[in-house]
Amino acid sequence: MGRIICCGLGPGDPDLMSVRADREVRGARHVAYFRKQGRPGQARRIVEGMLAADVTEYPMEYPVTTEIAFDSPEYIRLLAGFYDEWAERLARLARAVDIVVLCEGDPYFYGSFMHLHARLQGRVEIEVIAGIPGMAGCWNAVGQPIALGDDVTTVLMGTLAEDELARRMRSSDALVIMKTGRNLQKVRRALASAGRLDDAWLVERGTMPSERVARLAETDDSDCPYFAIVLVHGRGRRMDAGE
Amino acid sequence: MGRIICCGLGPGDPDLMSVRADREVRGARHVAYFRKQGRPGQARRIVEGMLAADVTEYPMEYPVTTEIAFDSPEYIRLLAGFYDEWAERLARLARAVDIVVLCEGDPYFYGSFMHLHARLQGRVEIEVIAGIPGMAGCWNAVGQPIALGDDVTTVLMGTLAEDELARRMRSSDALVIMKTGRNLQKVRRALASAGRLDDAWLVERGTMPSERVARLAETDDSDCPYFAIVLVHGRGRRMDAGE
Repeated sequence: MGRIICCGLGPGDPDLMSVRADREVRGARHVAYFRKQGRPGQARRIVEGMLAADVTEYPMEYPVTTEIAFDSPEYIRLLAGFYDEWAERLARLARAVDIVVLCEGDPYFYGSFMHLHARLQGRVEIEVIAGIPGMAGCWNAVGQPIALGDDVTTVLMGTLAEDELARRMRSSDALVIMKTGRNLQKVRRALASAGRLDDAWLVERGTMPSERVARLAETDDSDCPYFAIVLVHGRGRRMDAGE
Repeated sequence: MGRIICCGLGPGDPDLMSVRADREVRGARHVAYFRKQGRPGQARRIVEGMLAADVTEYPMEYPVTTEIAFDSPEYIRLLAGFYDEWAERLARLARAVDIVVLCEGDPYFYGSFMHLHARLQGRVEIEVIAGIPGMAGCWNAVGQPIALGDDVTTVLMGTLAEDELARRMRSSDALVIMKTGRNLQKVRRALASAGRLDDAWLVERGTMPSERVARLAETDDSDCPYFAIVLVHGRGRRMDAGE
């Protein structure tokens, strides 16, 4: 009986993978990962040059990405079928071999693998290896503490409604906004309405060679990569020394 | 001219350190870390067995921890002096050698090193190596996704006032409450008032051999380690497949 080992790969720089994930990836004989059709896939790109020569790869290609509205019944039906099918295939494979599933960031933190994780519960042994979340790679790229002392940190998805975004941006010290992409203009308006735009940073591909760090107010991008992250740093509500 | 390399060590299991941090720690000739007086120190404990035989260690011992109220002028004065002094010593040392500073979790995320970081800006070259935040080690220990889809995640310090805690607990999907320790009863009352107590987990020493995971409502602890974390999982506001 094999196992499924979901490796959190961290934010992008392979040097930021955990020692355990590095060992599992290099030793893997069977490797699965999500990707868009016709793209190499970000997770696969991170481990480039690390896989064994005789590894068997299982690219799990999303049947649809942005062609259909993500909240339409059709999108949900297609995606659910896709996850069902891959859960079945991985469960079957794992009867005989170990399979390493490559996941960007930290798998338990908004990770797509969780759709398989839920479907595989109780059917097969699953190990999840924590990774540095993508957002940590992004605030590392800015080079300032994202939060200190008593700061409240809020993680928001750019897919939320503009008024909800603005309300939450107003009431938190530190902010992390993920899933920006085509929501970037909405995120920008919400930040402006909350009086936080001038403190916001846009980080694309944090820790990767093509990393880009800019003050959001100084860019006029109306779009950005789906995985770009917007950050607003807390200021440390009071001096706090830890214990 | 040397550098200061602040290594995020992750949540506790040395196997979860990044490949880069592992390399820096093993290769270090000069290592500094915070600890309470008379204690080995959590950061130092994580790297036990990894340091070179001829390493020079600089334990930075807090002059005070819980004997004085943390918001008293005396506490703030003592701590500020302590950070000033160590910033000075590290800057002087770094004229000749590289110094690796050991930090639990991710240094930029509520890390004590940031008090030195602010004081060393522009005086010496500093590299900060991201780590898996302690909270990620804790939610990994529970084995469920902390957040999915459109979930809002809020990170709160147990040091906040009870009514603020309750208000924020009510309005967020996923919750991470850090700096629990002697604030645990307050955190428990706030969760109960927000209707979230039955979904809360208490995780102590996540990923470490002495890890403890329990439903908060099923424990009657009035106290817990300072670095224990309380978690409430989001449920995924809607099915979201990523892109």
